[in-house]
Amino acid sequence: MKILRVDMSQQKVRMEAAPTAYEKFGGRSLIAHLLLDEIDPGCEPLGPGNKLIFTPGLLGGISGLSSAGRLSVGGKSPLTGGVKEANSGGMAGDKLGRLALKAVVVEGQPAADRLFLLHITAQGAQLLPADDLRGLGNYDTVARLQERYGDEVAIISIGPAGEMKLAGAGIAVTEDFTKQPGRQAARGGLGAVMGSKGLKAVIIDDTGAPPLPLADEDLFRRAARRFARELIESPKTGKEGSMHLYGTSAIMLPVNEIGALPTRNFSSGQFEAVQDICGPRLRETILARGGHIGVRCMAGCVIRCCNVFVDENGLPIVSTLQYETLVLLGSNLGIGNLDDIARLNYLCNDLGLDSIEMGAAIGVAMDAGLAPFGDAQAAMDFLRQIKEGTVLGRLLGNGAAVTGRVLGVKRIPVARGQGFPAYDPRGLKGNGVTYATSAMGADHTAGNAIGARNTVDPLGREGQIELSKKLQRIAAMLDMTGLCLFARPPVVADPQLMVDLLNGRFGWGWTVADLEQAEEDVLRTEREFNRRAGFTEVHDRLPEIFSREPLPPHNAVFDIPPEELAKATEGL
Amino acid sequence: MKILRVDMSQQKVRMEAAPTAYEKFGGRSLIAHLLLDEIDPGCEPLGPGNKLIFTPGLLGGISGLSSAGRLSVGGKSPLTGGVKEANSGGMAGDKLGRLALKAVVVEGQPAADRLFLLHITAQGAQLLPADDLRGLGNYDTVARLQERYGDEVAIISIGPAGEMKLAGAGIAVTEDFTKQPGRQAARGGLGAVMGSKGLKAVIIDDTGAPPLPLADEDLFRRAARRFARELIESPKTGKEGSMHLYGTSAIMLPVNEIGALPTRNFSSGQFEAVQDICGPRLRETILARGGHIGVRCMAGCVIRCCNVFVDENGLPIVSTLQYETLVLLGSNLGIGNLDDIARLNYLCNDLGLDSIEMGAAIGVAMDAGLAPFGDAQAAMDFLRQIKEGTVLGRLLGNGAAVTGRVLGVKRIPVARGQGFPAYDPRGLKGNGVTYATSAMGADHTAGNAIGARNTVDPLGREGQIELSKKLQRIAAMLDMTGLCLFARPPVVADPQLMVDLLNGRFGWGWTVADLEQAEEDVLRTEREFNRRAGFTEVHDRLPEIFSREPLPPHNAVFDIPPEELAKATEGL
Repeated sequence: MKILRVDMSQQKVRMEAAPTAYEKFGGRSLIAHLLLDEIDPGCEPLGPGNKLIFTPGLLGGISGLSSAGRLSVGGKSPLTGGVKEANSGGMAGDKLGRLALKAVVVEGQPAADRLFLLHITAQGAQLLPADDLRGLGNYDTVARLQERYGDEVAIISIGPAGEMKLAGAGIAVTEDFTKQPGRQAARGGLGAVMGSKGLKAVIIDDTGAPPLPLADEDLFRRAARRFARELIESPKTGKEGSMHLYGTSAIMLPVNEIGALPTRNFSSGQFEAVQDICGPRLRETILARGGHIGVRCMAGCVIRCCNVFVDENGLPIVSTLQYETLVLLGSNLGIGNLDDIARLNYLCNDLGLDSIEMGAAIGVAMDAGLAPFGDAQAAMDFLRQIKEGTVLGRLLGNGAAVTGRVLGVKRIPVARGQGFPAYDPRGLKGNGVTYATSAMGADHTAGNAIGARNTVDPLGREGQIELSKKLQRIAAMLDMTGLCLFARPPVVADPQLMVDLLNGRFGWGWTVADLEQAEEDVLRTEREFNRRAGFTEVHDRLPEIFSREPLPPHNAVFDIPPEELAKATEGL
Repeated sequence: MKILRVDMSQQKVRMEAAPTAYEKFGGRSLIAHLLLDEIDPGCEPLGPGNKLIFTPGLLGGISGLSSAGRLSVGGKSPLTGGVKEANSGGMAGDKLGRLALKAVVVEGQPAADRLFLLHITAQGAQLLPADDLRGLGNYDTVARLQERYGDEVAIISIGPAGEMKLAGAGIAVTEDFTKQPGRQAARGGLGAVMGSKGLKAVIIDDTGAPPLPLADEDLFRRAARRFARELIESPKTGKEGSMHLYGTSAIMLPVNEIGALPTRNFSSGQFEAVQDICGPRLRETILARGGHIGVRCMAGCVIRCCNVFVDENGLPIVSTLQYETLVLLGSNLGIGNLDDIARLNYLCNDLGLDSIEMGAAIGVAMDAGLAPFGDAQAAMDFLRQIKEGTVLGRLLGNGAAVTGRVLGVKRIPVARGQGFPAYDPRGLKGNGVTYATSAMGADHTAGNAIGARNTVDPLGREGQIELSKKLQRIAAMLDMTGLCLFARPPVVADPQLMVDLLNGRFGWGWTVADLEQAEEDVLRTEREFNRRAGFTEVHDRLPEIFSREPLPPHNAVFDIPPEELAKATEGL
């Protein structure tokens, strides 16, 4: 396996053998170690000392394995000031893996204000000028690059937001079905890091790459087949399963039901118009208009949770419209109309903005009185202002924390400077524990308790720490192997299945205990990075108002005290 | 001695005996201990858990002692997130001291959005409604209160910026000569803390207060007389001294000469129009127009460094126009006209904004292209926008760090989130050490190396740590006793003089070593608070650009590395 070093100061690329010490790291675990080993944790995220890392998970790029091709992107976050791994579906993770690239590490900064393109093929890599793409949205950027390189390559790109180095900027990745930049490694502002390095896009062409070697082909194939079969036969991920039928939006009605659905800047846990934007309505609308349901972001995925949302004439608006976006740009803004949300989502994707962070920031701005809740036109205008670079636009583009601070809003839904995703921590306290204690800040993918709502009372204090700890470990396992969160049930039910996949691929002879140690190691390494970056226990808290202000309809507050929260990071 | 507790949640006041454990603390040292003992260092600065403390120094309120009546204001800073002590000349410190009040501690927050007035007399204290003062600038606020209470009372107040809870808001204090709110405990956003508590103003009436007891009257009087004599006879502070003749602005030409004068957002260390705004020009202009030079902010001060700057018709524009303001709102904005600077200063005072922080923030905004450097009208308009509460206004009002971050400016002159005062750390490296390592962030009063420019090369690396450490200790001594920085030469030359004053007042039998221990204790306690508030060594740095970008004319960079800087806080 190789590591591709990209020196943006000298505009030079260098392929090197991956150090043996990194053999067992991939995706999120590789990012954690590489950042801790190679950058000054005190460095400025947008300065030359930060590094931007693209890495597939350990299982990325193997043909015949479903749902394991997620791309991890890492660096010190300009939003949180801590370690960041944001991962994305789409075509890039598998193609990087297939090229036997353990990581692409982008370093330094060009002296002049120039833009570049990184072109990676089986023969090597080169940096090319990309000043002609300056200011282009992700859709136009991808269209231009597909003219040059065809649409079978994977494209990673930033939009204007990344070029402007806004802390709400994400990194777009093209999807398998649509070939559009509909996926994002969205969180933590890594798009701004890419922009600060003058890197507009990465083209990954795996043509001619040989299949990856398997240490124990028989073991691997058996495990991969069992994994696929369990996904296909599962009542959740299979053909009649809610994840296939509705995608991530399947969860909206349950979250509303338990009273944890962020509504009007987290002022309520239930949205009166939830029926108009929920999973079944999304599906029914798309099907009635001739859009697509049940399509794939990654080649070979058997779950196929994605959709193409189309307008009344059947013309695509955006793919894929997902739960977090439906909530943050929907109920959280008081917007109960799928077309409005889809158009806001398209704008975020095109500008290269994290739709979660933007929904949180616009929610805060609406709460400050800059526009009424429910005003989709105003939300659209806010996003246009980001593109234009007005002061308000730049403020919103830098995220909910700074927007709320500047506008003097009392309820700012952030942890570690990052906007809450689509679960109010008062209504789903396990997620509150994760938001407060994860090195990532408020990530729904860092340990999401919604799946455990029937076993651990979402409103109770009981069991939340243990639950979050377990979920944070599972999240680490998924993020280091490149597995999609939706594909977790088989490996959570039987961790030996994951061990078999890893042993089949690499021949490590791991046990379940080894896997668990590796999971723990990710969390420990990330926390150590954050410690050196200046985080202490005092940062493991949510904003005070979430402990004081009751959330309707259950009037819950987040009442897990700091000394309890400290248990979630014991030993890390 | 007593402590006045003001509970803003219940709108109740309570006078209590000061704990004996606090006997030897006053001003800054009392603030450090009180905050560490009484508030959760992790609390939100604008939330109900923070406390706002007004306290005279240990020597405040004794008649016959010159220059010792500064008022210390403290709390957790909304600008830095750390401990904050900002002190101010004017009438309030002495009057609080004369009332034998060790501190006024303002706690909690009113449930409703209401404003109050705290009226303190020798008979006690009461909270009164002050909603009629809402939105008034400091000058109108003081005028209204003087109609009611006369102009012999001291008035502490906030303007609209404090009411708006902007992190650049300071706390105004009336001056002895003008009776105007021309002094500010400006730094760190304590005006926003006062606003968050719904406290618009404090009236201090010391009528009928008995003289403070002196443990050894003879010792005290001898020391006080010697102190006054040395100030009067000093070539610096005496009648022909530069501090008396020019006030703080005496230092401008030397700072320009060494190349450390902040100019156009810290892009140069020399200003081509320095002659138009320097000390001699200020004095000559004021005298020619019939303004005042050599007046007092505190009763009984023998230095009398203050001025009243008037327009061409002899009408007052502002008092007192000082060095930091002349630079931050002058050369740092490329403005070389005293009238413009005086008008900007008046606006800052009236709105209740820290003129240093505003100069730094507007400088950053000009650097971002929002207005050309030198455009005084634009600067005026920016300040008006703060009052109007526009998005840009609120951004600027929250200080240079957030302004620079949102606008994407590469050179943001801040340490610990607080704007640099009027010495570029590259041109005066001792101040760079102070900015980086003081618990206060970038305060010129926390340890200013300018006075040592002839003994320690301002551009060299040699001796800067030791110099800053010594100066930080001296600053702590001044700030706990209430002494003005300008009055330091006699007690720096002979610390026994300070020991005699303290022993004469309190009968502690201190030695110089005891005094030094007390100084050290201030710095240690503050650093401990910050540690618990989440600061680590990694925060003891200046922004990277100051280590990379050479400062004309000497092309110096701040090249004292973190491991050297760490020595400045050894043992703290």
